Amino acid sequence: MASDEFEIIRRHFNQEGLAFAKQGVTLGIGDDCALLSADPLQQFAISMDLLQEGVHFLPGADPFLLGQRTLLVNLSDLAAMGAEPLCFTLALSLPKADENWLERFTAGLAVVAQAHDCPLVGGDLTATHSEHGAITLCVQVHGQRPVDAGMTRSGASAGDLVYVTGTLGDAAAGLSVLKGSSPQDLPVSHAEALVSAFYQPESRVKFGMALRGLASAAIDISDGLASDLEHILRGSTVGASINTETLPMSDAFRAMISESARLSLALGGGDDYELCFTVARERVQELEQQLLATDTTATCIGRIESGHGPIHWLRNGKEIALNVQGYNHFSTQKETQQQTQERQ
Amino acid sequence: MASDEFEIIRRHFNQEGLAFAKQGVTLGIGDDCALLSADPLQQFAISMDLLQEGVHFLPGADPFLLGQRTLLVNLSDLAAMGAEPLCFTLALSLPKADENWLERFTAGLAVVAQAHDCPLVGGDLTATHSEHGAITLCVQVHGQRPVDAGMTRSGASAGDLVYVTGTLGDAAAGLSVLKGSSPQDLPVSHAEALVSAFYQPESRVKFGMALRGLASAAIDISDGLASDLEHILRGSTVGASINTETLPMSDAFRAMISESARLSLALGGGDDYELCFTVARERVQELEQQLLATDTTATCIGRIESGHGPIHWLRNGKEIALNVQGYNHFSTQKETQQQTQERQ
Repeated sequence: MASDEFEIIRRHFNQEGLAFAKQGVTLGIGDDCALLSADPLQQFAISMDLLQEGVHFLPGADPFLLGQRTLLVNLSDLAAMGAEPLCFTLALSLPKADENWLERFTAGLAVVAQAHDCPLVGGDLTATHSEHGAITLCVQVHGQRPVDAGMTRSGASAGDLVYVTGTLGDAAAGLSVLKGSSPQDLPVSHAEALVSAFYQPESRVKFGMALRGLASAAIDISDGLASDLEHILRGSTVGASINTETLPMSDAFRAMISESARLSLALGGGDDYELCFTVARERVQELEQQLLATDTTATCIGRIESGHGPIHWLRNGKEIALNVQGYNHFSTQKETQQQTQERQ
Repeated sequence: MASDEFEIIRRHFNQEGLAFAKQGVTLGIGDDCALLSADPLQQFAISMDLLQEGVHFLPGADPFLLGQRTLLVNLSDLAAMGAEPLCFTLALSLPKADENWLERFTAGLAVVAQAHDCPLVGGDLTATHSEHGAITLCVQVHGQRPVDAGMTRSGASAGDLVYVTGTLGDAAAGLSVLKGSSPQDLPVSHAEALVSAFYQPESRVKFGMALRGLASAAIDISDGLASDLEHILRGSTVGASINTETLPMSDAFRAMISESARLSLALGGGDDYELCFTVARERVQELEQQLLATDTTATCIGRIESGHGPIHWLRNGKEIALNVQGYNHFSTQKETQQQTQERQ
C-alpha cells in the first residue's frame, strides 16, 4: 500500500507504458513544469476537460474503462481541430489511495496513450479524504497542426454540406444500459456495443487530420449534435437544414431505444464524440477519398443555409417541429434533475 | 441569473479583462482547442495544479482572493523554471451557478492575469448539483523560456549555495489566522500580512526569469522547504546542510507563532510559493545584481554537499535532530488528520 503521493506517481504514472519518450517532449514528469520544444511550422492546439464522478461518469465506474474514456474524450477535441496528439497532463483527485483502482485506471489510460503516441508529461495528484469526495479528473491534451489547417467553428458557408461521422446516440443509450434500463430482449452484443460507445468512443484523430484544409468547419459532439452544430452556426453566422431521416443510427441503438425517443436521444443525448463537420459541395469527392483512406464512415445529414438562424429540422423534405436541448450544466433545477437522470 | 453555461462563459470568462489578446495566442476561448503559435527559439513550459475546497482552501473562501491565489500558485511553477507566462486554461466545477461568486472570482483572476500578461484561453465548466459538491479548480499555465535556461531539479552540484526568496511559513501562519487561532495580542497589520501571504503569494516570475542560466537548480515551495528541497537533492543526487538560524522569517510570523513551533512551520507548513534555488559560489555576485535589478530579497540558507543523503540541519554550525514532513496527500489516516488540521 503506497502511502506517499510521490511513490504513487513514480509507480503508477511515471511508468514506461504511460510517460514514454516522445520527440518534442524535452522534459516530462518530475519537475515544476514539463518542457515542450516548438516546431516553427506548426501551431500548438490545447484543450482541457474536467470529468467528475456522478456528473460525467457513474459512481463505481470500471477504472480501466474510465482511463480509456478520460483520454479519448480529450483527444476528440484535437481531432475536431485536425491536430496530431503530442502529449497530455492529468490532474487527479481521489478520496483515498486505492492501489487496484490506480493500476487499472492507468492501464486504461496507457492503452489510449500508446495507440495515439501521446505520453503523460505532468499533472497533479490530490487526496480529498472526504467520505463525500467524488473522483475528479482533469486532462489537458496538447497537439500540433499546420498553421493553415482551418477547421475552426467559424468557417462554414451557405451551401456547404453537413456531415457526421459514425452513428449518433450510442453513448447515451449505453449509459441507459449501465443504469439497467434495457429492454429484456436486448441482445448482449447490442448492450456491449452501446456501453463500449460510452467508455471507448471511436477515435477520430486520424480522420480529423485528413480533414485539414478540407472541412470548412468542424466540432466534436459532446453535448449532442443539435447543441454542438449550433456552435458552428453561431460561429459562422449561418443556419442549417438537417434531414432527420438521414441521421445515422446503429442497429444496437434502434434495438435499445423506442422509435418515439430515438430522435431526441440521437440529437441531444451527448457523449458521442463523433465529428460534425462541413465541406464545400465541390470538394465532396476529396472527402470521399479521405473517408476511404482512413476507413471512416460519415453521413451527409443536411446543408448550411445563409443567415444565422435556428436549425431547420426536415423529414422527407418537410419541416417538423423539434425542441432538442443538449446537456447544459447550469440549467434550472427542474431541467437539471431531468437531465441528470438522463445523463447519469 | 444566468442559467446557461455558454452564457456564463461569455459573461464572466470570455471578457476583455481576462481573455485579452496576446501575441502567440492565435485562437483563444470558443473553439474545440485554443491555438498557440510556436517561437522556434523557445521551449514551452507547462504546469497543472488542481485546487479543491476543503483541501487546498477553506470552504467559503473569498472568491476574489481565491481567484488571485489560483493563478498565482500556478505561475509560481513557471517562475521556478524561468519561464515567461504566455496564457492559461481553467477547469471549474461548481455546485451551482452563483453570479456574485463568479464575478468576484474572475475579477481576482483578472488582476493576476493582467499583471502577468497571461490571458485565459480556454477550459471547462461543470455543475455538480450536489449538496456535498466542493468547488474544484484546475489551472494549467503555459510559459516560454530559452532552450538553455536550465533551472531543472537535477542541476545542483556539491559546493553550490542554497537560497530561498522572501520569508518562510507566512502562508501556513495565515491559514491559522483564518482558522481563528491567533494570539489575542496579534496586531491586525500582522494578521493581514499573513492572510495576504496565503491568498496573494508574492509573484517570483520576474526573478525566476532573471535566474535563467544562473541558478543551477530551482523549485517553488508548495509542500514546505524541507520536502521541496529534498526533490532537488534527489534529482541532483546530492545532499545539503542548512543553517536553521538563517531561515528567513517575517516579524508577523514571529508574532503569530511561538518560538518552539516556528522551525517546523517554516520548514513544513507549505503554501509559501517562494523559490528555493542553488547557485555556484563563484556566481554569487551575479545573483546579487539580479536581486537588486528585480527588487527581490533572497537569503543564503546553506550549501549543497556531495552524495545524495538526508538534509543536515545545523544550528550555529552544530547538527540538530529535526523531523520535518511536508504535506503529503496520501499519508496514513492518522498523519492525515493531523496534517489536515494543520492545513485547513
